[in-house]
Amino acid sequence: MEFDTIAAISTPMGEGAIAIVRLSGNEAISIADSIFKAPAPKKLREVATHTIHYGNIVDPETLQVIEEVMISVMKGPKTFTREDVIEINCHGGLVTVNKVLQLVLNQGARLAEPGEFTKRAFLNGRIDLSQAEAVMDLIRAKTDRAMNVALGQMEGRLSKLIKRLRQEILETLAHVEVNIDYPEYDDVEEMTHHMLIEKATSVKTEIQKLLQTSQQGKILREGLSTVIIGRPNVGKSSLLNSLVHENKAIVTDIPGTTRDVIEEYVNVRGVPLRLVDTAGIRETEDIVERIGVERSRQVLKEADLILLVLNYSDDLTHEDEQLFEAIKGMDVIVIVNKTDLPQKIDLKRVQTLAEGRPVVTTSLLEEQGVDELETAISSLFFEGNVQGGDLTYVSNTRHIALLTQAKKTIEDALDGIEAGVPIDIVQIDLTRCWELLGEIVGDSVQESLIDQLFSQFCLGK
Amino acid sequence: MEFDTIAAISTPMGEGAIAIVRLSGNEAISIADSIFKAPAPKKLREVATHTIHYGNIVDPETLQVIEEVMISVMKGPKTFTREDVIEINCHGGLVTVNKVLQLVLNQGARLAEPGEFTKRAFLNGRIDLSQAEAVMDLIRAKTDRAMNVALGQMEGRLSKLIKRLRQEILETLAHVEVNIDYPEYDDVEEMTHHMLIEKATSVKTEIQKLLQTSQQGKILREGLSTVIIGRPNVGKSSLLNSLVHENKAIVTDIPGTTRDVIEEYVNVRGVPLRLVDTAGIRETEDIVERIGVERSRQVLKEADLILLVLNYSDDLTHEDEQLFEAIKGMDVIVIVNKTDLPQKIDLKRVQTLAEGRPVVTTSLLEEQGVDELETAISSLFFEGNVQGGDLTYVSNTRHIALLTQAKKTIEDALDGIEAGVPIDIVQIDLTRCWELLGEIVGDSVQESLIDQLFSQFCLGK
Repeated sequence: MEFDTIAAISTPMGEGAIAIVRLSGNEAISIADSIFKAPAPKKLREVATHTIHYGNIVDPETLQVIEEVMISVMKGPKTFTREDVIEINCHGGLVTVNKVLQLVLNQGARLAEPGEFTKRAFLNGRIDLSQAEAVMDLIRAKTDRAMNVALGQMEGRLSKLIKRLRQEILETLAHVEVNIDYPEYDDVEEMTHHMLIEKATSVKTEIQKLLQTSQQGKILREGLSTVIIGRPNVGKSSLLNSLVHENKAIVTDIPGTTRDVIEEYVNVRGVPLRLVDTAGIRETEDIVERIGVERSRQVLKEADLILLVLNYSDDLTHEDEQLFEAIKGMDVIVIVNKTDLPQKIDLKRVQTLAEGRPVVTTSLLEEQGVDELETAISSLFFEGNVQGGDLTYVSNTRHIALLTQAKKTIEDALDGIEAGVPIDIVQIDLTRCWELLGEIVGDSVQESLIDQLFSQFCLGK
Repeated sequence: MEFDTIAAISTPMGEGAIAIVRLSGNEAISIADSIFKAPAPKKLREVATHTIHYGNIVDPETLQVIEEVMISVMKGPKTFTREDVIEINCHGGLVTVNKVLQLVLNQGARLAEPGEFTKRAFLNGRIDLSQAEAVMDLIRAKTDRAMNVALGQMEGRLSKLIKRLRQEILETLAHVEVNIDYPEYDDVEEMTHHMLIEKATSVKTEIQKLLQTSQQGKILREGLSTVIIGRPNVGKSSLLNSLVHENKAIVTDIPGTTRDVIEEYVNVRGVPLRLVDTAGIRETEDIVERIGVERSRQVLKEADLILLVLNYSDDLTHEDEQLFEAIKGMDVIVIVNKTDLPQKIDLKRVQTLAEGRPVVTTSLLEEQGVDELETAISSLFFEGNVQGGDLTYVSNTRHIALLTQAKKTIEDALDGIEAGVPIDIVQIDLTRCWELLGEIVGDSVQESLIDQLFSQFCLGK
């Protein structure tokens, strides 16, 4: 396929040591040539592929030097997009890199849409859709485990599994064809019936297994939305600080937006906790006071995990009981803090209120119990069965939806076979299942869906 | 010189399409070799310099694939640091790039200090100190003009001027030597006296000229700290939005800190405005109510520019007059907003209160007067005499301090000559001036100062 030449800034926006303007397309190299001036004049279109060249970016109209750069020349098809790719490696200033981008656009490149480089890698057949999606997951990964899942998917682990399942369905369909074409052989029908049940059951089992990884996969991918609640002065801020300081806090700045949407992640034993409304906790300690407020209810309702903090050296209050009431049926870890002070709390009552959910006692002041808390968090969601990168996880909502539909169609097929419906009806269900699985890797996907998928990528990827 | 091998993440922290781990030093290539696996096995130490190689980063202990990368191999001395340099170009995820950095450190690299790559470029003699400082200025540049100043300095424009001045002083000193060595020639003394005055005056004039650029240079480099004040509902938020939307807003996230210190810059005709306390304006519109508060007074006191907004369709109030009182003697632009509504304000009185400072009438709602406002801002500080990148600006506080001292010593020398003090005393002042100018470009600079200078750089630069 042939496309126009696109360009974008491919490094995160911010002050850094290096900023990169990336171009891809037929004109990439000649556009770079038109604004590049090496100390000993040379043309990038004449240099060898996969080489790096020092020089200045010069505005061809004003002849003004814009930036001192290193230019990487990578000629297709052995590139990320399979097209000619240029990377202009600038000193990392926002103004200069924007200026270089502007020049490149003036010279005829088009500003790339988010994800458009990866989209080209997909459209040019270098990677399939699930691999392209894994590229973005890798970028967004919050923990090693999430990274491993994404890497496995990027290497094509999920693609291979899906392809194998599709192959099995295809073979089954071929067999069915025989049956349809030669109905005079009775034993073929008998065999087909058995074989169909066997094959369909096997496909169903595999899809089911994949779907079973999806809850953990989604947590690894998106993080556990976590809310800390408790009365004032029970130690919510200490808990937050302890989680943030003991573990690496990852603050992500979502591009194109303002300070309001910065999120904070902490990595607890491989489980990424997305701490919600931490600003509120830090600043005002007033989430309890706001518990009646609609917004707080909403935050609680959307949380994957609630950390309820109680005071070990104080009686349970009406407020505490109300909090337990508010989080009925949710995933909660109860933290009884301040064991460094004399006990006043009725731990039996706490256990009753916890209704079997984990209760951990801590003294955050003396750094006691944090280990137990982290164990509780990680075992609540993984129960020790996340085994590094070897398992193939499904973490992507789109994949989960497609697998769920595929499972439904294969079940329909199985029901049909057992109810003795005509084989060509069964064939329709099997074909549908084959198509649904195909959508995961990007066979037979609508263009609008592709556009929508890649638009979730970062700029310059 | 020979140093150990350093490594750092050289792209801004955040989700992006590309993240780079950079290494510099003798071991850079062998360290990269120990964790790099190309599809067709190759050793980076055997490849040509300035070439790019595709492959995986593999943990040599677990043999686990960590990331799919492009590695740039640049062998010294034609590199940024003059040492062997490796750039590992990863998909831009925080977790993976940290993991790659960790591996590189495990293999024997040391985590680079902020600015250490540029420091090596300086210590290895590729650039002088003022050029190194310009690298950082370029990264921090908020506008095209600031970028041009930094680029000029990076290209060595300031260095050349300083070197010329030092050369003149050196020649003068040589001449003085002759006088000291051959005191028997009377006419030499006479000549020396004349020549000394002439040369010293010329050096003094040049230093003075440079210092005159420093106020503008500093503004270009650091931005104008700008505060918007006014009663509620006069249009402060509209003004802010208008400035932000009409111009490119640059939000910088200062590394290693939390959301509190995010600053917002807008580029008004090349003048970078650093908008202070905009969060306060956006959220509460209450800066007037807080005018009595110590913090607000502090903000006003530290501002370079105050934008005072008044309501065209309302009488001047006691509060307005108090605001004028609070900003006496400061750089202020008065904005009389809401000219789309009937006039009520007494513009004569406003002019009186403005005490000669610019008054602009606007209707931000109808986008009237914004041009005039921007002209007022830019001419208040530059009066039309910022001429792109051709002028050599001094913008760095360190340089300004050294130039001020140098000017003082050259004046001492001049006074000495005219008062007829012995020529070897004058010689001391001239030598001191020569040394002070030398410190700007990094001759005869103490190591502790160098450490301190480079520590202000970003990580990975």
